[in-house]
Amino acid sequence: MADITPVLERADANLPESLERLFDLLRMKSISTDPAYKTECRKAAEWLARELQALGFDAAVRDTPGHPMVVGHHPGERPDAPHLLFYGHYDVQPVDPLELWEAPPFEPGFQEVEPGRKVITGRGTSDDKGQLMTFVEALRAYKETKGALPCRITILFEGEEESGSPSLKPFLEANADELKADYALICDTGMWDRETPAISAGLRGLVGEEIIVRAADRDLHSGLYGGAAANPIHILADILAGLHDETGRVTLEGFYEGVEETPAEVKATWENLESAAEKLLGEVGLSVPSGERGRSVLELTWARPTAEVNGIVGGYTGDGFKTVIAAQASAKVSFRLVGSQDPVKIRESFRAHVRAGIPADCSVEFHPHGASPAIHLAYDSALLNTAKAALSQEWPKPAVVIGMGGSIPIVGDFQSMLGMESLLVGFALADDRIHSPNEKYELASFHKGIRSWIRILDALAA
Amino acid sequence: MADITPVLERADANLPESLERLFDLLRMKSISTDPAYKTECRKAAEWLARELQALGFDAAVRDTPGHPMVVGHHPGERPDAPHLLFYGHYDVQPVDPLELWEAPPFEPGFQEVEPGRKVITGRGTSDDKGQLMTFVEALRAYKETKGALPCRITILFEGEEESGSPSLKPFLEANADELKADYALICDTGMWDRETPAISAGLRGLVGEEIIVRAADRDLHSGLYGGAAANPIHILADILAGLHDETGRVTLEGFYEGVEETPAEVKATWENLESAAEKLLGEVGLSVPSGERGRSVLELTWARPTAEVNGIVGGYTGDGFKTVIAAQASAKVSFRLVGSQDPVKIRESFRAHVRAGIPADCSVEFHPHGASPAIHLAYDSALLNTAKAALSQEWPKPAVVIGMGGSIPIVGDFQSMLGMESLLVGFALADDRIHSPNEKYELASFHKGIRSWIRILDALAA
Repeated sequence: MADITPVLERADANLPESLERLFDLLRMKSISTDPAYKTECRKAAEWLARELQALGFDAAVRDTPGHPMVVGHHPGERPDAPHLLFYGHYDVQPVDPLELWEAPPFEPGFQEVEPGRKVITGRGTSDDKGQLMTFVEALRAYKETKGALPCRITILFEGEEESGSPSLKPFLEANADELKADYALICDTGMWDRETPAISAGLRGLVGEEIIVRAADRDLHSGLYGGAAANPIHILADILAGLHDETGRVTLEGFYEGVEETPAEVKATWENLESAAEKLLGEVGLSVPSGERGRSVLELTWARPTAEVNGIVGGYTGDGFKTVIAAQASAKVSFRLVGSQDPVKIRESFRAHVRAGIPADCSVEFHPHGASPAIHLAYDSALLNTAKAALSQEWPKPAVVIGMGGSIPIVGDFQSMLGMESLLVGFALADDRIHSPNEKYELASFHKGIRSWIRILDALAA
Repeated sequence: MADITPVLERADANLPESLERLFDLLRMKSISTDPAYKTECRKAAEWLARELQALGFDAAVRDTPGHPMVVGHHPGERPDAPHLLFYGHYDVQPVDPLELWEAPPFEPGFQEVEPGRKVITGRGTSDDKGQLMTFVEALRAYKETKGALPCRITILFEGEEESGSPSLKPFLEANADELKADYALICDTGMWDRETPAISAGLRGLVGEEIIVRAADRDLHSGLYGGAAANPIHILADILAGLHDETGRVTLEGFYEGVEETPAEVKATWENLESAAEKLLGEVGLSVPSGERGRSVLELTWARPTAEVNGIVGGYTGDGFKTVIAAQASAKVSFRLVGSQDPVKIRESFRAHVRAGIPADCSVEFHPHGASPAIHLAYDSALLNTAKAALSQEWPKPAVVIGMGGSIPIVGDFQSMLGMESLLVGFALADDRIHSPNEKYELASFHKGIRSWIRILDALAA
């Protein structure tokens, strides 16, 4: 392993200009969900392509039916080093409600939240422009110091992550040969806390399903019909209440098939983090872990499957009161999956549970909303252990391997379509307010994030 | 009892002019909920006062903070006959959506729906102008034939029934001595069917309560928090599902205190009507009676208490899907009461049930929406039996005593504020489309309604 001290020093020296470049990117209103910002999305893509070209990448804006991709290639210094694919996204979430922002969302700035601790403010700082730029700036420091990159790098920037990535799969399929590398690096996740870097290993899968229960063919007056006419809200409440037993376990038949216990040694590292996890609940005003009894908050959110009702509506919901028996009521229900739980079987089992609760004269309609299996990155791979050691050199506390409650579909796509293992490293914090007003990114996340990638690249190339 | 044949014949002879008068009243756009029709409401009140004066009533338009009342007094022929208070309302529902009307709502007309069966069409024909005019025209036929009324009559016409009667209680309070009579007659209800007149005896009470369950202090991402953070929709579903047991009985502690079984002989008359009741469910696309097992549709809606969820909302309810764990979820719940169920106790029992389902780190907020006890008019009072016999003389089939699923607040007010028992007789039909476009009133309801009141008045005065 070459001495990387000069590269790290160069990154430190570059910081003011790195921030200027980041701010240029942050000023572009690349909101992918709103067609009004189509031009701004392309502007961001073009800006990124130029940045990569300036670093010696063979980079281009690549059209899709939606917002464009940016793809760039750069050879590496060491021929036997692995070929790495880096993924980030340049699109951002909408900014409404605008009035809740303390500063305009697309005018990035700094804020000193406590002595010695600065944050970068603005839409996209944490999700994901600030994060993807840590990698770009790491490459720059490398290139400027060594005149080369330590290994062959392919970069893929997407512009539709916040709108469900409709063009991603077709693009991966059409360009599989070009994009296939030895490993994928994804920078769209978080640290454990400000001092502890994290590598995300388990990603829960997701099955979404909307159900609409219908009873009478019109809304009824509860005075005239109450007590004799089926009430779809009652039917729905019964069905939803029946999803869990008293111990918090999901009752669906076959639900726990493919769910494995987390290894004891992994659970042990999580126990060290547990008080912080309780703090996590505390930060949102809660204190009692819900869900399956006898399991820690971290295990519940990282390694256990769930059934959650995400939305429900039926009958009169305006001001005041209306004694109506609704004609229909609906709910959106999702399941987080772990291990090798089969999304198709879970959906079928849920539908069977729902159908069993529908009276003979009522009906139910199902609308599927996505199905993806859980993805588990091995807790003990060489890739993971190398990155863990590298991160632990940079930050005050050693890196931890954590689960992730949510899914990042691209990890599954990289695995299934390109046969690549992914490494998920990111420097966001839980309080970064991504998707919300006043999004921020710690200046330390940006600065030490750049340094972290230098260390990881160097270690992986060795 | 005097021979009333001449009075009935006079009513028959008067019919064309009775209809002309009704049409005059129907042309007035007395929509009480819309301030734009304030003048039209007063016009209707003034018209009614003049009509009563023409019949020899000491009648006047009486101002309230809202639309005026009309009050009139007339002495009776027989000094020992009871003093009767008649109530009806001259205001009508709004008419939108106007484009669904086959004829302009305030241009009354006739329609022959089948050979020999005519209906009167227009807003207010059934609710309640057509109904209140049956009583006025009955008085006219009496007066014109006998030169007097059979008993002392006080009339109260209200102009705010369709907007919640805000001025009614204060008016009753301020004029209690003037309005107090031996019995109240209310003409704002319906027949069982076109051949069977009905007297409404039981009116269910109502307790309304809105609950808001709060968990985390913000909406959470179900990927990050799912499985560990309390989900208020689950909590709410459990609470609501727990309101009924498997037999459809309400589980609240003390809920059935004060609920009495309907006398077997009354149930027997209802059994004869039951196939029609099943037709009632069939008309709204249902077939299986919900609620308490082993009880008929009529018993369930007329004589049994209920717990109904009238509205529920929580989390994401828009198009598509959002994997959110909501910060709060709410429901509007109402209870129909019978017998001597205590609204205050029912509310408290419900609140206790809800509180018992709220986890330690969550909270609940309650918003009361009205509380009125059930009103039961004895199944075997002299008033009721007299009216029943009189009605049975007029119509093809004998009169039935029915329950009413809903509440008519004025009946309670007459009872509690003026100590009066009410008799609820009306000639509306279930398909009169009250509150909807193309409201109608059967010509037979109007004509035989007038004749019915003549018979009832005569019988009560005897």
